[in-house]
Amino acid sequence: MAKTENITYARSGVSIEANDEMVERISRSVSATHGPRVIGLENSFAGLFRLDYDEKLFKKNYRSPVLVACTDGVGTKVLIARQLNRFDTIGIDLVAMNVNDMIVQGAEPLFFLDYLGVNKLEPAVIASLVESIANGCKIADCALIGGETAEMPDIYKQGDYDMAGFAVGVVERNRIITGAAIEIGDVVLGLASSGVHSNGYTLVRHICLKTNKFRLSDKFDELGPATLGDVLLEPTRIYSRSIVSLLASYKKKKVVRGMAHITGGGLVGNIPRVLPKNCDAVIKKDSWEIPAIFAFLQKHGPVEQAEMYRVFNMGIGYVLIVAPDFADSITDKLSRLGEKVCRIGLIAPGNGKVVLK
Amino acid sequence: MAKTENITYARSGVSIEANDEMVERISRSVSATHGPRVIGLENSFAGLFRLDYDEKLFKKNYRSPVLVACTDGVGTKVLIARQLNRFDTIGIDLVAMNVNDMIVQGAEPLFFLDYLGVNKLEPAVIASLVESIANGCKIADCALIGGETAEMPDIYKQGDYDMAGFAVGVVERNRIITGAAIEIGDVVLGLASSGVHSNGYTLVRHICLKTNKFRLSDKFDELGPATLGDVLLEPTRIYSRSIVSLLASYKKKKVVRGMAHITGGGLVGNIPRVLPKNCDAVIKKDSWEIPAIFAFLQKHGPVEQAEMYRVFNMGIGYVLIVAPDFADSITDKLSRLGEKVCRIGLIAPGNGKVVLK
Repeated sequence: MAKTENITYARSGVSIEANDEMVERISRSVSATHGPRVIGLENSFAGLFRLDYDEKLFKKNYRSPVLVACTDGVGTKVLIARQLNRFDTIGIDLVAMNVNDMIVQGAEPLFFLDYLGVNKLEPAVIASLVESIANGCKIADCALIGGETAEMPDIYKQGDYDMAGFAVGVVERNRIITGAAIEIGDVVLGLASSGVHSNGYTLVRHICLKTNKFRLSDKFDELGPATLGDVLLEPTRIYSRSIVSLLASYKKKKVVRGMAHITGGGLVGNIPRVLPKNCDAVIKKDSWEIPAIFAFLQKHGPVEQAEMYRVFNMGIGYVLIVAPDFADSITDKLSRLGEKVCRIGLIAPGNGKVVLK
Repeated sequence: MAKTENITYARSGVSIEANDEMVERISRSVSATHGPRVIGLENSFAGLFRLDYDEKLFKKNYRSPVLVACTDGVGTKVLIARQLNRFDTIGIDLVAMNVNDMIVQGAEPLFFLDYLGVNKLEPAVIASLVESIANGCKIADCALIGGETAEMPDIYKQGDYDMAGFAVGVVERNRIITGAAIEIGDVVLGLASSGVHSNGYTLVRHICLKTNKFRLSDKFDELGPATLGDVLLEPTRIYSRSIVSLLASYKKKKVVRGMAHITGGGLVGNIPRVLPKNCDAVIKKDSWEIPAIFAFLQKHGPVEQAEMYRVFNMGIGYVLIVAPDFADSITDKLSRLGEKVCRIGLIAPGNGKVVLK
């Protein structure tokens, strides 16, 4: 076969040059997340984070440190951001999905890394995405120490992208929270979510964009002055600062017996992940205010109520199961830390499931 | 608008049930990577890994431990695996891309997590992918402590998927290898790659599948008895066990002054990441045997030679820059550890670049 020109890497679909422009634009926002524990190396192959084990404070808090790590993406919420061409919040969701999982075990976040897979390196989009990830890291008190952006036009369609996050934290071994200490009579506290968070967006998009053909710029009386797009893009609440502060104030007593981040599967799917086999969590559905977006989605689906509770957080983004004598003081502390806290249920004899009442 | 039936989450594109079957199939291979430092929790929100700081050995080795973390994918090599419907090695590539980056800083790998984005959860495919990731982790001596599989039919086309990995390791602070200690006269050692590794596959696929319309089942005299697909899917070599052993045998002397994992950008792009600004690395191109696949790609592109060295590893997957007095003993040690080692160049006065001779 005759060939008239040489192929270069750039022409075959990957532009190495585009990378440089992007790297410059994002470095400022990334550095802003770095405390003295991050060891900066130019062009390094990996991120470096000091455990400070030679410092008195760390040594005092951690005799047997256990690293806690998780990875997650934000599902098809990325498509809402793409459709609105607004990438300044979706990175907060990415951090939230990971950090909220990690703190469930009692850990404090240390650092974060991101992976972006894209159709094409658009420096403005990548910069906005990474800035929003850096913002999330600041909210979560963790350092953004690494990331990878892969341009793969043969995998991602034009305009499409995916993002994955990775968070590492630390917890002292004998303070890992597993749920094993949960007892009959314990109180279930719920922290308000900021909306749909980052789960169920395949259903959300099906209802809003496919079945009903709403536009993201549409406004609806029941959703208030914000557009549908604004409501759907509301970033996932990050609970780490509140939870880390709370746990630090109970160094001796183990009053928080189990926690759950309410992700895909909702309250009914996530609380059982920490319940002992002989306990149920009896949740009173009328004990908190359900944000308007959920009634909106249920009506326009329509979606059966049981299914709503299996897919969505329904207004509760994070759950703590606590010793009853401390429920009030924990509620007070979390409220002062800025959380909206509701007593949503009780632990009762059972077989490890959630009973919605 | 009239609606005749309720929507369930499964029907809107995401099957929650498929997840359970998969989880069972992969749990065995994942557990096989777990040593006593992994704390197993059923259904936990995050992976837990003990630093063993209360153990004498760890305390002796690490006075000021620094965590080292990186994230990477395998690019469009995933599409070769998909086309061959063989997912039993691509996970080794994923581990390799991350772990080989991490050891550059002198770290020993601790644990790994993976993120898979897919069009549809095919349990057999996911199980095979995760098994191959677990195999990679065993080769790299790290524990697979977490993973996420996201089914997103609206992002990934039928059969398409992407994978991202995250690796965490540890290095004693005063033993971090940065390249800053590199001196004129140091020797550049190259470790043989196993082939194309995981970079340049957009160009590879362009040449083989688009321009020349080869089939992956085709055989070519110059490639030996293996099919083109077999050659292209050969997993990336994981250097961690050799490098960690080598560094452990030079606890006091800092004889390894810089290292580079040869990824996208080739020798010319990656060695400068660790070179001091007043040094060049002068590489003699005829000092090692270039695997046949590279001549094959160059011929069938055609691709200019300089471009070949900018995109591909050309047979050298990992580079060490070492004190000249120790070059022979390091070569011996690495050879005994199973590496194919070549003395490929020298450090000379310059301005931080690679000179190919």
